[in-house]
Amino acid sequence: MMAEPAAALGVPLRLLAEAPGVSAAQVIPDHVVGDYTDLATLEELVTGCRVVTFDHEHVPTDHLRALAASGTAVRPGPEALVHAQDKVVMREALARIGAPVPRFRVVERVEEVADFGFPCVLKTSRGGYDGKGVWFVGTPADCAPAFEVAERSGVRLLAEEHVAFRRELSALVARSPSGQSAAYPVVESTQVDGVCREVIAPAPGLDPDLASGAEALALRIARELDVTGILAVELFETDDGVLVNELAMRPHNTGHWTQDGAVTSQFENHLRAVLDLPLGSPVARAPWTVMVNILGGSSGVGGRLYDGYPHALARDPRLRVHLYGKEPRPGRKVGHVNAYGDDLADCLERARHAAAWFAGELGNESE
Amino acid sequence: MMAEPAAALGVPLRLLAEAPGVSAAQVIPDHVVGDYTDLATLEELVTGCRVVTFDHEHVPTDHLRALAASGTAVRPGPEALVHAQDKVVMREALARIGAPVPRFRVVERVEEVADFGFPCVLKTSRGGYDGKGVWFVGTPADCAPAFEVAERSGVRLLAEEHVAFRRELSALVARSPSGQSAAYPVVESTQVDGVCREVIAPAPGLDPDLASGAEALALRIARELDVTGILAVELFETDDGVLVNELAMRPHNTGHWTQDGAVTSQFENHLRAVLDLPLGSPVARAPWTVMVNILGGSSGVGGRLYDGYPHALARDPRLRVHLYGKEPRPGRKVGHVNAYGDDLADCLERARHAAAWFAGELGNESE
Repeated sequence: MMAEPAAALGVPLRLLAEAPGVSAAQVIPDHVVGDYTDLATLEELVTGCRVVTFDHEHVPTDHLRALAASGTAVRPGPEALVHAQDKVVMREALARIGAPVPRFRVVERVEEVADFGFPCVLKTSRGGYDGKGVWFVGTPADCAPAFEVAERSGVRLLAEEHVAFRRELSALVARSPSGQSAAYPVVESTQVDGVCREVIAPAPGLDPDLASGAEALALRIARELDVTGILAVELFETDDGVLVNELAMRPHNTGHWTQDGAVTSQFENHLRAVLDLPLGSPVARAPWTVMVNILGGSSGVGGRLYDGYPHALARDPRLRVHLYGKEPRPGRKVGHVNAYGDDLADCLERARHAAAWFAGELGNESE
Repeated sequence: MMAEPAAALGVPLRLLAEAPGVSAAQVIPDHVVGDYTDLATLEELVTGCRVVTFDHEHVPTDHLRALAASGTAVRPGPEALVHAQDKVVMREALARIGAPVPRFRVVERVEEVADFGFPCVLKTSRGGYDGKGVWFVGTPADCAPAFEVAERSGVRLLAEEHVAFRRELSALVARSPSGQSAAYPVVESTQVDGVCREVIAPAPGLDPDLASGAEALALRIARELDVTGILAVELFETDDGVLVNELAMRPHNTGHWTQDGAVTSQFENHLRAVLDLPLGSPVARAPWTVMVNILGGSSGVGGRLYDGYPHALARDPRLRVHLYGKEPRPGRKVGHVNAYGDDLADCLERARHAAAWFAGELGNESE
């Protein structure tokens, strides 16, 4: 999705694709297929590039350090990105700068989890994504799978309190190497089985002080961790304020609404930021924007995707559709829709209907 | 610019590029370099394509007829497109359907121009673009260059009255093969030396009846000529109403404002139309949108283009910039900017300043 603003701004992209024909390779002519865990591949790729950036956090930190050491502008830099790669590093850094975080402890044995207190959440320090690498545990016996995965993957395990949150929020900011920053309106995100399903911008009924506090917190984290590009701070809203759940340092699912709902999309501001260009306005263009993800095969019938256009576009001429050119697999994010307008209930209805339709969750009888 | 909505909609594009590295080839992976006047090249290109469409009108009509005859969906079809390729065919068709047009006559000798009456405008039937192929003539002697070009190119020559217009307008519509149509707000366009310089959407102070009449006229022309895709109807506004100046059947410079100013851009609606998908809403998203073209080397100093970003983006965080990745040559359109908002004067100032800055027309001393 970065290819769209890159085309508009005339920024040439070079892509490392993990396989032939993946989404990004469909729209970026200058791409090579290779393994992002192979340093030689990375070194060859970046030759002639002004800046290296990412659409996921899985490139090994040491490889990024090697690229940076040889003079490549890596943005976000490895010393920042490690906070989005390693949850232990992230938790410890956030605690150090006084950001509100859930109670946590690195655990090496089940007894330490019991000491920490059941019920709690176990998370692998690295490799988790969309709910993977996370276990809700209530007894010592529940902990075995988490310790097995951690040991097999050679990563650490984190125990965290199970936060009784009202809802999840996300505070998205962009920050450039020269320190210019822009904060998007704080949004509400709804997760189902650990996967983002729906985002409402701005978060409905959010206390203005809490909203500006969350924006200020995200800006402070970006500054303290020296983030460049987009930083998404996923938050729990509790009765006592907010707690930081996760960090992401790339355009993030909770910012997809900005493509149609903000003056400058998160993808454009990520590009601007890593190129150290002045950031675009993050202000919303409509009172409400709702983003709903389209998941492949969520109904077991495989979904309609491109075949869904005739109905979805005719039903709602204002609907904004983003499909990724991915093969639908159960639970895989294969696209999203944005609906914006003056009336939140209307936006929700339009976006939810369209996403359900594309996913094949609505039968013909309901049409 | 069609690549951006194609990426969002997941529509795979295959491009015939006239030379390696041209704008579109920079952003469309599946492209071949070839000559659009060579039928064999076209036949090979379209194999496996569901639909063929255009970003200029210069593919020979007979080649398009050959493709259509062999079963390719050519949209707009050759029998429609010829009206945007050949001004004589266009004028005669518009006169036949009763559309308001300037007085005109096909001329084969200077004496016929004299009969038609000086001063007048001579236009070649084919091959004109951005003011090329147009002569304002006041005497028989003035006519020689036009007749020479027409004879050399093997095209016809049209004499037209010199219309005393108040201003130029443009009515843009999208139409699908199944007949669904969408009309964008009528805009005002300013030409300098035959080249579009600036567009204001909607046309300021336009009489509502004239506006709806112009939209209805464009919709009628699209229907009568069986246009598919975008049709731009360039109009002269006179004391007595509007006259049709030119037709274009492709996303048009007077519709570039829609990228940031309308719910659905002309590029997306062109794609939707030629794919016979339901059209998106053409409604404006802001009270005013101003588009100003960036011309290469218009000041003789070559322009700033990408070097212009630090100032232009910092001065106006809401500015929307579209650069085409073209080498700047004097008078060549190398990009455009859009500024939208509630205040027309503010939008004009922002867009004009930015375009002048990118073009190198503002010295450092004026900053």
